[in-house]
Amino acid sequence: MHFAAALPLQSGAQIRDYALSFETYGRLNADKSNAVLICHALNASHHVAGLYAGQDKSEGWWDNMIGPGKPLDTDKFFVIGVNNLGSCFGSTGPMHVNPDNGRVYGADFPVVTVEDWVNAQARLLDAMGIATLAAVMGGSLGGMQALSWTLQYPQRVRHAVVVASAPNLTAENIAFNEVARRAIVTDPDFHGGHFYDHGVIPKRGLRIARMIGHITYLSDDVMNEKFGRQLRSTLGHETTATSVEAYLYSTQEIEFQIESYLRHQGDKFAEYFDANTYLLITRALDYFDPARDHGGDLSQALARASSKFLLVSFTTDWRFAPKRSREIVKALLDNRRDVSYAEIDAPHGHDAFLLDDPRYLGLVRSYFDGMFKEIAA
Amino acid sequence: MHFAAALPLQSGAQIRDYALSFETYGRLNADKSNAVLICHALNASHHVAGLYAGQDKSEGWWDNMIGPGKPLDTDKFFVIGVNNLGSCFGSTGPMHVNPDNGRVYGADFPVVTVEDWVNAQARLLDAMGIATLAAVMGGSLGGMQALSWTLQYPQRVRHAVVVASAPNLTAENIAFNEVARRAIVTDPDFHGGHFYDHGVIPKRGLRIARMIGHITYLSDDVMNEKFGRQLRSTLGHETTATSVEAYLYSTQEIEFQIESYLRHQGDKFAEYFDANTYLLITRALDYFDPARDHGGDLSQALARASSKFLLVSFTTDWRFAPKRSREIVKALLDNRRDVSYAEIDAPHGHDAFLLDDPRYLGLVRSYFDGMFKEIAA
Repeated sequence: MHFAAALPLQSGAQIRDYALSFETYGRLNADKSNAVLICHALNASHHVAGLYAGQDKSEGWWDNMIGPGKPLDTDKFFVIGVNNLGSCFGSTGPMHVNPDNGRVYGADFPVVTVEDWVNAQARLLDAMGIATLAAVMGGSLGGMQALSWTLQYPQRVRHAVVVASAPNLTAENIAFNEVARRAIVTDPDFHGGHFYDHGVIPKRGLRIARMIGHITYLSDDVMNEKFGRQLRSTLGHETTATSVEAYLYSTQEIEFQIESYLRHQGDKFAEYFDANTYLLITRALDYFDPARDHGGDLSQALARASSKFLLVSFTTDWRFAPKRSREIVKALLDNRRDVSYAEIDAPHGHDAFLLDDPRYLGLVRSYFDGMFKEIAA
Repeated sequence: MHFAAALPLQSGAQIRDYALSFETYGRLNADKSNAVLICHALNASHHVAGLYAGQDKSEGWWDNMIGPGKPLDTDKFFVIGVNNLGSCFGSTGPMHVNPDNGRVYGADFPVVTVEDWVNAQARLLDAMGIATLAAVMGGSLGGMQALSWTLQYPQRVRHAVVVASAPNLTAENIAFNEVARRAIVTDPDFHGGHFYDHGVIPKRGLRIARMIGHITYLSDDVMNEKFGRQLRSTLGHETTATSVEAYLYSTQEIEFQIESYLRHQGDKFAEYFDANTYLLITRALDYFDPARDHGGDLSQALARASSKFLLVSFTTDWRFAPKRSREIVKALLDNRRDVSYAEIDAPHGHDAFLLDDPRYLGLVRSYFDGMFKEIAA
């Protein structure tokens, strides 16, 4: 959907003549009360569920969660997936042309925040004639957007489902983002963010950024279980030799399975993800901090929220640890809000929010079932 | 000290005509029973204690631990600090000339392991006429060397002091090393490890490597306490503004204090550390795994050890967590060895082993006091 009117951004800049890519699933009911907005995290898009015709392996990124008969049942709810401004999967982003000067934005794409994304999503809902959401839902950075919806548009959100998220980033979270950004920005192929003009891509930096990201998405336990200290595959077979005689004694060759996995993830990512988008989205994560304008008092910041909440965290998530979700729960309870909270004992780290855990999926299903009864009543 | 005879390495290669830099502190007693060898970790050297004449700020890296009247008291013990092969602080390393072809080693420096370092250290002691060490001591990678001493030369070590260490690296530990190595190796200035010939240094890669390292040395708690979400200094003063209006809205400028700290650490490190040494030392960490030749059974691997042990870990160390030290303790107890173990409740993460914690320093003092009574008896 194209938006001609300028959207004022938190930074004071604005963006005009932009487009948002979105997909919808299911049918909006007569009183438009069954809409659920899905907000995405770093590496995802508006394509949250289903397959594209004729394209195997094109499942939406939350296809285990959303679809007919699934926990968020598209036979009951009208689900909207939207790609955020600055992303590289369809909506206006750094690879597009700046209408002000006719040149590709590149590094000149304005810095966007979680709040800006929520404002852009609200405009999309306006255009669709949806005044109130049954729910807004997201994991990780998507959870931050869901939380922000309840503060920016408290009257437009009945429920917020905030999964594996946090009320802001810790210094360590920012630190990992910063190293990833430095890897990209100092790649000679970055050219100050105007690499498109040079016909190159800062793939070295993107690979490093993704490798760092992947380490923080997984738990130490699941890494040990999946890879441990196993040596690389040899001629297509995992080497089963356990002796030190199997070592290659090389600093640059792949020696351990975990190295092979990380390099593969980095290579894949560098093929399709935009470097400027990586900078923008990690910065949006850094900036999100609803308590900042309230002297750091999250309870005060969340006093505006009037939605009902479901928060979910995962025990082995060390990126957005359960204690971060509990901070949100506590701040909501301080305001006597209606909050459900589940801490799922899952081994997969931060990635768990995308995976098939029966207790997690069952919990979300039951929450949406309850919501549907409210709507039907 | 120069060594003409070739040292056979674990990889099957060998190294000849090499030198080890070392320093000693205190006096060797008449029966040569008071020698303590200190093994260093990634970014350290033979200069473990004291100041160089006329050089302020030249304190040894373990100066709070070692010296006259200090926990490891050089009025009582003869302390030896030795720089390892492949390092860049004096001993033969990648920046030196390969006697086989008259060219700088660079990436051709042979891969060295913890076991190789211990063998080289043993040769140094041979040359000094020291048959038996009162103790071998090290933190982190240095602790791995201390542990390996008790397996390679069980009769030559009375005590081993193993601080903030582990019996091997986890997949996550290897993963962080690998990302750091990829940042270095893919820096266009690395030139396959022969950058010296090109008159350049892969500083971009070294900076990223050091930034990643620093994140893993600190605890999440201490990062939050030291930096939190504070914004950068403005005109030499920390900005005290807490509102989002203080944000710069930039993806490349320094916005948060933690970014400034990490960039500074990275810049400093890239000025003095050798890129090939970084690859070698992180690989030595990856390879260390005494249980590997025993089907993963650490108890069986440690059956050879006959020393007495002191192990120390720190509660907030997530790089080499207390549970890794406990694995060593358990394996030693399975063999009915004499083990003391302390888990220090310190907030500083892995870095704690280098810092002034009164309980930690007091504990080491008391352990060495007891050792001195044994020697004097």
